[in-house]
Amino acid sequence: MISTQAIPWEERPEGCKDVMWRYSQNPIIGRYDTPTSNSIFNSAVVPYKDGFAGVFRCDNKAVQMNIHTGFSKDGINWDIEPDPIVMKAGNTQMIDSDYKYDPRVTFIEDRYWVTWCNGYHGPTIGIAYTYDFKEYFQCENAFLPFNRNGVLLPEKVNGKYCMLSRPSDNGHTAFGDIFMSYSPDMKYWGEHRPVLKVTAFEDSAWQCLKVGAGGVPIKTDEGWLMFYHGVIKTCNGFRYSMGAALLDLEQPDKVLYRTQPYLLAPAKDYELAGDVPNVIFPCASLHDEEGKVVVYYGAADTVVGIAFGRISEIIEFTKNNSI
Amino acid sequence: MISTQAIPWEERPEGCKDVMWRYSQNPIIGRYDTPTSNSIFNSAVVPYKDGFAGVFRCDNKAVQMNIHTGFSKDGINWDIEPDPIVMKAGNTQMIDSDYKYDPRVTFIEDRYWVTWCNGYHGPTIGIAYTYDFKEYFQCENAFLPFNRNGVLLPEKVNGKYCMLSRPSDNGHTAFGDIFMSYSPDMKYWGEHRPVLKVTAFEDSAWQCLKVGAGGVPIKTDEGWLMFYHGVIKTCNGFRYSMGAALLDLEQPDKVLYRTQPYLLAPAKDYELAGDVPNVIFPCASLHDEEGKVVVYYGAADTVVGIAFGRISEIIEFTKNNSI
Amino acid sequence: MISTQAIPWEERPEGCKDVMWRYSQNPIIGRYDTPTSNSIFNSAVVPYKDGFAGVFRCDNKAVQMNIHTGFSKDGINWDIEPDPIVMKAGNTQMIDSDYKYDPRVTFIEDRYWVTWCNGYHGPTIGIAYTYDFKEYFQCENAFLPFNRNGVLLPEKVNGKYCMLSRPSDNGHTAFGDIFMSYSPDMKYWGEHRPVLKVTAFEDSAWQCLKVGAGGVPIKTDEGWLMFYHGVIKTCNGFRYSMGAALLDLEQPDKVLYRTQPYLLAPAKDYELAGDVPNVIFPCASLHDEEGKVVVYYGAADTVVGIAFGRISEIIEFTKNNSI
Amino acid sequence: MISTQAIPWEERPEGCKDVMWRYSQNPIIGRYDTPTSNSIFNSAVVPYKDGFAGVFRCDNKAVQMNIHTGFSKDGINWDIEPDPIVMKAGNTQMIDSDYKYDPRVTFIEDRYWVTWCNGYHGPTIGIAYTYDFKEYFQCENAFLPFNRNGVLLPEKVNGKYCMLSRPSDNGHTAFGDIFMSYSPDMKYWGEHRPVLKVTAFEDSAWQCLKVGAGGVPIKTDEGWLMFYHGVIKTCNGFRYSMGAALLDLEQPDKVLYRTQPYLLAPAKDYELAGDVPNVIFPCASLHDEEGKVVVYYGAADTVVGIAFGRISEIIEFTKNNSI
Amino acid sequence: MISTQAIPWEERPEGCKDVMWRYSQNPIIGRYDTPTSNSIFNSAVVPYKDGFAGVFRCDNKAVQMNIHTGFSKDGINWDIEPDPIVMKAGNTQMIDSDYKYDPRVTFIEDRYWVTWCNGYHGPTIGIAYTYDFKEYFQCENAFLPFNRNGVLLPEKVNGKYCMLSRPSDNGHTAFGDIFMSYSPDMKYWGEHRPVLKVTAFEDSAWQCLKVGAGGVPIKTDEGWLMFYHGVIKTCNGFRYSMGAALLDLEQPDKVLYRTQPYLLAPAKDYELAGDVPNVIFPCASLHDEEGKVVVYYGAADTVVGIAFGRISEIIEFTKNNSI
Amino acid sequence: MISTQAIPWEERPEGCKDVMWRYSQNPIIGRYDTPTSNSIFNSAVVPYKDGFAGVFRCDNKAVQMNIHTGFSKDGINWDIEPDPIVMKAGNTQMIDSDYKYDPRVTFIEDRYWVTWCNGYHGPTIGIAYTYDFKEYFQCENAFLPFNRNGVLLPEKVNGKYCMLSRPSDNGHTAFGDIFMSYSPDMKYWGEHRPVLKVTAFEDSAWQCLKVGAGGVPIKTDEGWLMFYHGVIKTCNGFRYSMGAALLDLEQPDKVLYRTQPYLLAPAKDYELAGDVPNVIFPCASLHDEEGKVVVYYGAADTVVGIAFGRISEIIEFTKNNSI
Repeated sequence: MISTQAIPWEERPEGCKDVMWRYSQNPIIGRYDTPTSNSIFNSAVVPYKDGFAGVFRCDNKAVQMNIHTGFSKDGINWDIEPDPIVMKAGNTQMIDSDYKYDPRVTFIEDRYWVTWCNGYHGPTIGIAYTYDFKEYFQCENAFLPFNRNGVLLPEKVNGKYCMLSRPSDNGHTAFGDIFMSYSPDMKYWGEHRPVLKVTAFEDSAWQCLKVGAGGVPIKTDEGWLMFYHGVIKTCNGFRYSMGAALLDLEQPDKVLYRTQPYLLAPAKDYELAGDVPNVIFPCASLHDEEGKVVVYYGAADTVVGIAFGRISEIIEFTKNNSI
Repeated sequence: MISTQAIPWEERPEGCKDVMWRYSQNPIIGRYDTPTSNSIFNSAVVPYKDGFAGVFRCDNKAVQMNIHTGFSKDGINWDIEPDPIVMKAGNTQMIDSDYKYDPRVTFIEDRYWVTWCNGYHGPTIGIAYTYDFKEYFQCENAFLPFNRNGVLLPEKVNGKYCMLSRPSDNGHTAFGDIFMSYSPDMKYWGEHRPVLKVTAFEDSAWQCLKVGAGGVPIKTDEGWLMFYHGVIKTCNGFRYSMGAALLDLEQPDKVLYRTQPYLLAPAKDYELAGDVPNVIFPCASLHDEEGKVVVYYGAADTVVGIAFGRISEIIEFTKNNSI
Repeated sequence: MISTQAIPWEERPEGCKDVMWRYSQNPIIGRYDTPTSNSIFNSAVVPYKDGFAGVFRCDNKAVQMNIHTGFSKDGINWDIEPDPIVMKAGNTQMIDSDYKYDPRVTFIEDRYWVTWCNGYHGPTIGIAYTYDFKEYFQCENAFLPFNRNGVLLPEKVNGKYCMLSRPSDNGHTAFGDIFMSYSPDMKYWGEHRPVLKVTAFEDSAWQCLKVGAGGVPIKTDEGWLMFYHGVIKTCNGFRYSMGAALLDLEQPDKVLYRTQPYLLAPAKDYELAGDVPNVIFPCASLHDEEGKVVVYYGAADTVVGIAFGRISEIIEFTKNNSI
Repeated sequence: MISTQAIPWEERPEGCKDVMWRYSQNPIIGRYDTPTSNSIFNSAVVPYKDGFAGVFRCDNKAVQMNIHTGFSKDGINWDIEPDPIVMKAGNTQMIDSDYKYDPRVTFIEDRYWVTWCNGYHGPTIGIAYTYDFKEYFQCENAFLPFNRNGVLLPEKVNGKYCMLSRPSDNGHTAFGDIFMSYSPDMKYWGEHRPVLKVTAFEDSAWQCLKVGAGGVPIKTDEGWLMFYHGVIKTCNGFRYSMGAALLDLEQPDKVLYRTQPYLLAPAKDYELAGDVPNVIFPCASLHDEEGKVVVYYGAADTVVGIAFGRISEIIEFTKNNSI
Repeated sequence: MISTQAIPWEERPEGCKDVMWRYSQNPIIGRYDTPTSNSIFNSAVVPYKDGFAGVFRCDNKAVQMNIHTGFSKDGINWDIEPDPIVMKAGNTQMIDSDYKYDPRVTFIEDRYWVTWCNGYHGPTIGIAYTYDFKEYFQCENAFLPFNRNGVLLPEKVNGKYCMLSRPSDNGHTAFGDIFMSYSPDMKYWGEHRPVLKVTAFEDSAWQCLKVGAGGVPIKTDEGWLMFYHGVIKTCNGFRYSMGAALLDLEQPDKVLYRTQPYLLAPAKDYELAGDVPNVIFPCASLHDEEGKVVVYYGAADTVVGIAFGRISEIIEFTKNNSI
Repeated sequence: MISTQAIPWEERPEGCKDVMWRYSQNPIIGRYDTPTSNSIFNSAVVPYKDGFAGVFRCDNKAVQMNIHTGFSKDGINWDIEPDPIVMKAGNTQMIDSDYKYDPRVTFIEDRYWVTWCNGYHGPTIGIAYTYDFKEYFQCENAFLPFNRNGVLLPEKVNGKYCMLSRPSDNGHTAFGDIFMSYSPDMKYWGEHRPVLKVTAFEDSAWQCLKVGAGGVPIKTDEGWLMFYHGVIKTCNGFRYSMGAALLDLEQPDKVLYRTQPYLLAPAKDYELAGDVPNVIFPCASLHDEEGKVVVYYGAADTVVGIAFGRISEIIEFTKNNSI
């Protein structure tokens, strides 16, 4: 959904030749920005009314993971609800949830759909919808556990809802490819297809261990533009960076191009240190009619940062540097 | 489906007080019983015409896993096709399969449904149907990888197909609970619910690491009688034994009773030694109008054995020894 | 032992609503504050004469772990002996020690008791006493290896010495609960009881992997106030935070309350980076007659920091946020 | 305690040059020799009245571990109680136990002492006494978890009870040395000393991963003769064999000699296959005035076997083949 | 070297359609066939004088690994020296060895060369020569640790000695491909090339984890016929089977064909149970002018077995079933 | 090779008593100092013409590892080629390379030799020579995989080239000692000897997991002065520090002295945070006629730093603090 409000923006710094660049005032959301939070990161935003709304991952000081509503006029300064979202029953009465994290949000047809990693006998993909970011209606989980990073396309394709996800296991999963699944009704899912796999170490090491969809893909003439995270394992743990891919408009489980180099990798203090060092984890983006885009990402599993770019340049880069 | 043919049978041996007992001529199928096989085990049988038909896991001498059709007059002596089953397109054109193993078979309404562990970018649940055990029509995989031990209930419940499965990971999974999923059409699946979980080590150690559905559950007045395997990890590897559970007829993801003791555990030569020592892995059963039941199980991932019991006694035992 | 000297103190910063807050001049002891040290952290202090004395963990530049005596007038500026403590024989001639780390100190009856993790065919709990912080007399180790975080109550209960500890294994132990053991004579120990266990991940993730006693518990009307560390494992390693619990005065192996949220978690530069990033590890506290308390903690296994609070508020918080 | 009854015995088979040799009718106790047992192994026997009494590890068919009383006239044919031992309170009211396994039994002064691996917030060493093998009185656990293979010397040394044990961790421990601890009263324990450690792989690989005391040591002129198990890890798991050591009579934590070669290693069908293949695990022995000795050992964690030898020859072998 | 003596032989059993078949009297060497042996396996034989000579891996009862000389008239009944081979200095004074195992032997030009896994600060490839199987002269190790399964071609190619080996690590290596290295002088080695790699699991699972050269390759018109072992990892450990490959005569690091199915896999009692269950490990072969071949293999790391075949049939099978 | 140009230099800071000290303007090379680089670190420099030349490890933004030429007038400000070095055939046509990293450079006789970790079916030691840092001629790899940290002595000893290396495995190797190998011709290698091993944890923990040669050793009257890295494993990963050793001039695989304390360990921001936190990894040094030395090291696998010292003081320290 193209934002008709002004999205956050800074021009590319002088001398910078990168396709994307960070906001000079990062992080825009601090770890203690709600009264009980330990960290706020990996969060999703959309244009809403005359500003923006979002669903934010807030781990509290017991390090319980949950999602909170937030509103903003400018996309940078956010009012985040101190209490987590309370769900009502949507297309099912079974709305159990041990924990919620890493939300994504998109508008389809008449409502906003939220997906997240839902704790239901293991991590799986939770789904809810809201019309107003006040009442949320939780639906059946999309899949069996173990799954993470469930992301919807922002419209139906061939009459079906399209969900990207990354099948996982029950721990700090050391593998992970992106799959697509389809549903006629947001309740039953099938036609599972691989989309984007990890690369060979020699080809592109930053994405050789795991990949997972970032924010809701953006529809462009060249295909669905999907930001995603890739992971490498060093002797001191995992490092999460961000790349981009273009998916076929009609057959969105088909990758047309993907970046061999990353677009953004941990390099700033707030990305290198925190609860989980060396993490850039995109969960959302906003774009406007001019083709400007701002990506929201969790940094070090602790705070929220943003980075800017132009869709046309990103597409160009992705096509020219595809693996 | 109750067998109207005589099923294999031997009476309980004198002095034996066990609820189930082995066939004295086990194993009934040897590892080299097809020209190219390395091992034949974890296989499924059903009543068919004036005898029995089955789908057999045959690993060849390259240790590639595949499923083969077999026929038998008596359920003990089997003619197994030397070549694997070739699939035609069922409710999808996408019938890729890197490997197939651990089949189950059941008749629903008008046809026989086969489910198995299907290699499609990792192990998941493959589905096919056949009317005649000659032509097989492969359908969409039920789930995203990683999954194993997909078993259908032998009839729809509340208008939906019911599939038991065990979400897993991409290796020798060291965890595993049984879940139920539902489908209106054998193509899209949802409403995923936990059914049977591993037990605490102190309560019943033989099933404390993993559990997985065995053969197609049997409908009884007391509920769906499901044989299942449970796994314990010793310092020398996994040991697979067999227990039973009763699932609610109307809400089959609800467990009414489950056995705290096992019904059958590796103790015979052909169960203690082989390609994977210490494995009893049930994948099918036949039962008749008198309530006699014969369970087919893979032994040591190498051969097929059978064990006998009476449904009424097994139910009684399950209720009296439930955890 | 209540300090009759002024303990280090800063009032809660304006706007701060936390129960405990850090000293603005942290860290108070740097990693190179003795001539040969690689790091100084996880150390213990007590009121002594007209000031304070302490036992400090100093790893030298060969990264050998040992404990050193230190003295201070104000509890902030410390003179630490450049050489490690040399032990004399106490209640045994067997005073072997491959290494010493993570000391605690308390006064009981007539002397100061030091406990630490002692290398004796694996880590176990070393015990010594001193009257003057000059001569130290080493006693029998309390337990068999493998054990860490041995902490004495500051007085006998029911006529017996009371030792908290955390049974471990021989490496970077990935489990750990706090136990209590009792002794009539500081030589033979028994009546081992569990005290505080790790929590379920969903309930309080920061303390779901390991917990260990912090400094010597403080006697209050509401029970023994024990600061402790809790550990969570992220994909990039362990993170150590601090909580508090109240133990029953008469039956100190019984937990009355424990904090679901942490009191302090790594967030400052000197806690996020160092030899072991993301560690806050309390080993001691001082409190005065007004109920002010200052906790000494190792930061990032590299330096020493302090944090302030009021005992009454901490108790109130612990009771109101107990799990 | 020297048996005044005839102990089980067979002469060394013709042509056999081994120091110890197996009973030709092994195993003497089968896995199903009680109505509910899955396996009977790792058990302890002593002379009692005009025959023998014993405490047997019986895992039931839920694979719950417990200990049972048994009696025998000849040491070979045993009547084992179908129900586990029920403990009464001994020197403590706290007699919790999640499970019991691997018992040892010895007579000291006026009663029989039983030690075993006791499940109390992890495995530790349980202690009980009985006068008649009917009433058992459970005492305080000797140690904190995690510990296994607690074995008492059959008399006090220097006025103290002496307990061998093997500190462990909470799983299939991949390390383990034998320690000695002392107690004035069977309630409080201290003075922990290393006794027998694993060897270097190059020196004696069968005992390079773990060692643990076997049955109650036998007092001889040359020292305490201790049979023990040693473990090697192959690519297919652990292998347990049996050796012997001589401990100093006056200072029993001092090893005088230990066998570089094993005395007995898995080679028979009932040792090579079973619930845990490749295990010989001694837990007891009987000896008579002539110096004949019969060792009882668990085989493959499934059954009980015995092996014979002459104490003088075993001592000679141990001294001549010491490492 | 073609044997001019009659090699061991039995015709293919009736009804058997396998390319290779076992000797009906296997195992030909038992585990206790020397006075101190725990096991005799993975051994090498060659034609010698009017019979055969060999170098045998004998692990003693301390489970120390060493190599022993043996002689035989018929290749089946062997006299194995009770004492290990004592080495003299060959092309170096540095003949240290912590252990020796898995020997191979071949005749080149004027002498017999023995290679083995040599313990020198880790496992590497030891080399020695002998003229008479009495005096052995140890040379420089071929490679740095960690390496195993060093096998020489039986003649120089392009003027250089050719050594197959399998780079490894310092434990139960879970990976392993076969490489070739060349030497002008048996002292300095270089020109390292990959030869045979593990296969994809889907293609040929029995050789998907590790492969290693078996006996000395046999020169044929179709190339160097190399028997080799392949390994799969099941949930209960490693399983070793045997296949064959043809290497280019002139460029022996080039594989022309390799068997997708195995030629021989563990199926007999003495292969399924023993110190390491499920191992067939070829280390040598004898062949005669008629093209008959007998392969010597270690079974279950415990005993020696042999299997028969005809070179022409094996080559035919390898070409027709190549992957 | 002694530099006749002025090497980078700063005097020891006031108050500093360390043997070596960092440059105040560290890091001298930033992570983005070439257009496509993700990081520049672990690099090698030598005197060249009227300045310095170097070979630099530059990981690009696809995190592909490669080596680049660089030139500098002052050793601090470097012009690094944006494109990786392209190799020509040296003493072999086989110059495959999946990746190149961690180069070292030295001048021997008539040319500059470059060694590096070369990706050839696993990491091994690549060798090339250049006369002018424009054309490079790649030679045979020195060893079979798996190996890292190949470092040549700067002249032949006893007529042979001398290569230090660290045998490894195929992942983040958790072990590693330094070996020496010899070659008559830079093509075939042999006479492999252990040089420097890891220490016992109790003796010097910073070098207890792995050690690897740093830059090219410096010839001194007291022996070859070798800087090396040592590694300790904490619960949050590996930490790399730097020490020094003196090797015998005539028998360079013999260690005369080695430092028990480290010379330099991660403590600065650019060492504590980055792609791999807590890494100091020396790969080169320059020294002049006055005995001043500057060590170049990779910091946090991200940037290049330098540290200063005087050779005579370092030797003195090494001898006085040897383990």
